Amino acid sequence: MKIAVDAMGGDYAPVEIVKGAVEAARDFDIPVILVGDRSTIETELAKYHSPKPNIEIRHASEVVQMDDHPATALRRKPDSSIVVAANLVKSGEAQAMVSAGNTGAAMAVATLKLGRIKGIDRPAIGSLLPTINGKAVILDAGANVDCSVENLLQFALMGNAYAERIFKLEHPRVGLLSIGEEETKGDELTKATNAELRSQDILNFVGNVEGKEIFRGAVDVVICDGFAGNLVLKISEGVAEFMSKTIKAEVNKSLISKIGALLMRPAFNQFKTKLDYAEYGGAPLLGLDGICMISHGRSDARAMRNAIRAAADAVQNDVVGCIKESVRRNTLAAAHS
Amino acid sequence: MKIAVDAMGGDYAPVEIVKGAVEAARDFDIPVILVGDRSTIETELAKYHSPKPNIEIRHASEVVQMDDHPATALRRKPDSSIVVAANLVKSGEAQAMVSAGNTGAAMAVATLKLGRIKGIDRPAIGSLLPTINGKAVILDAGANVDCSVENLLQFALMGNAYAERIFKLEHPRVGLLSIGEEETKGDELTKATNAELRSQDILNFVGNVEGKEIFRGAVDVVICDGFAGNLVLKISEGVAEFMSKTIKAEVNKSLISKIGALLMRPAFNQFKTKLDYAEYGGAPLLGLDGICMISHGRSDARAMRNAIRAAADAVQNDVVGCIKESVRRNTLAAAHS
Repeated sequence: MKIAVDAMGGDYAPVEIVKGAVEAARDFDIPVILVGDRSTIETELAKYHSPKPNIEIRHASEVVQMDDHPATALRRKPDSSIVVAANLVKSGEAQAMVSAGNTGAAMAVATLKLGRIKGIDRPAIGSLLPTINGKAVILDAGANVDCSVENLLQFALMGNAYAERIFKLEHPRVGLLSIGEEETKGDELTKATNAELRSQDILNFVGNVEGKEIFRGAVDVVICDGFAGNLVLKISEGVAEFMSKTIKAEVNKSLISKIGALLMRPAFNQFKTKLDYAEYGGAPLLGLDGICMISHGRSDARAMRNAIRAAADAVQNDVVGCIKESVRRNTLAAAHS
Repeated sequence: MKIAVDAMGGDYAPVEIVKGAVEAARDFDIPVILVGDRSTIETELAKYHSPKPNIEIRHASEVVQMDDHPATALRRKPDSSIVVAANLVKSGEAQAMVSAGNTGAAMAVATLKLGRIKGIDRPAIGSLLPTINGKAVILDAGANVDCSVENLLQFALMGNAYAERIFKLEHPRVGLLSIGEEETKGDELTKATNAELRSQDILNFVGNVEGKEIFRGAVDVVICDGFAGNLVLKISEGVAEFMSKTIKAEVNKSLISKIGALLMRPAFNQFKTKLDYAEYGGAPLLGLDGICMISHGRSDARAMRNAIRAAADAVQNDVVGCIKESVRRNTLAAAHS
């Protein structure tokens, strides 16, 4: 198994990307192919004195910029690091790709090169949310803003497969994001999707799930359209930032509070780790015939290291095969009903 | 001015509702009409020994239960406390109503009895969100799950009027909730609404606003459909609860952290106050020809006291008149363009 890493994508590329790849290769023994400008990558690699038997370089002469239109990557930059990384997965030289570059371009390139799984109309981003007792995967986290009931059902199959293989759960609890637990609550899309999900017996559908219940750990998989999913992620980030800043401001008003905060620092740090996106590293684009991890543009070495590990994890646990099998079972069940 | 308070609605009615009304009448000198079973209210009032010259009772023989269908309140319980309170506003005996009871019923009754403002198709709930430097009003917070562009434009007019009068701002910054700042980001409804809002020159429209920016205080008014708005509120509550519980769990792992937490308690309390829904007390149902404050079912005396103050504030600042004026200006502008 090899993981193709877009060394040129992301706000801190190539420095942090190469560092993260070196760490992943060393700490988890994951073979990595760094894709991008060869001499730049060689310069970065030279900073690390440890032997690097499981790191290769694949030259790519172009770079997709953050503000490039997604279609540009494919049409005008066929030798860009994102495209070359995707080609490595397509040809079977690598089993997964990871990019912290232009998200739209990475999604477009991966979808075109790896292709969609038969029965999946639209790939979806599966992001992890922390919960009181673990985590949940939410999809779609932003790839598809306007969705149909059919799209959401496919997201449910994909999220279920992901939770089965990555969370190691036999019957993941699948919930539909809504604004009330009753099946009559929600917008038209949610109500229609709830009815469809109730009528199937392949998934362990537990009904609608509200914001509070997600963080309480009520479900393993949260289904929603990409507008709602992205909203959830960004509101969560916003509230977390607001709370940290407000607590800090209050603490700074008194010396006693400051001493208290100092004593609490280890607890705060543990807590920050739980929330930190870098801990998860990246979100898989599910529904493709191959693994593509989309990392945050602000990814540092730690985020990249973890994204590479998550990509390897998805390959080793055959998430793609599991999604294919879920789609097949669902098609069979539909044919029998 | 008098505020009609539904003394029978809410999880802690009538005890906490009556207590909150007594406090509002005493602390802010707001005249209150308590609506509900007379003897029950009299028993509650007897607990307070202070003179209560500005508290009246209006008997209502029925109570709308939390699980009653909204239509039930109107058709089968015409002498319920919610209906009687709305009638008081309709007749002009009271200038605003406040209820912590069945939200759907309160909205249905208020809409039917008070009537919609001409030019407003659907009333919307305006909820307050805390921000780093103050607060913002978000609407719709849950009254209308599926909305049209026209609905959202009307929400913008109403939110603007509310922010003008309650936040005392000359040109409130109006933002459209989306998942990216660029006007091309968002679902179909958001993109179409963005275009419409950009084409008008009555409101200070600052464009799309993302979750993080809301809490950073980037806008005074957040426009969205009721599904997204309610999602924002519930995700915020969920994240806040998750963060508090996680910090507590981490703190309890070490004695030093526990001491730190003890020293930080005043700062934490200040912080909790900022987030607490009870500080705001209730959310106005905007777009009606009269003031109706919808309070949380879990409202305690403090929440009710603050909701009554917020209702009086809306009356004294003529929020309804300001919305009417906004709609009139908008209609004129549309006719001229």
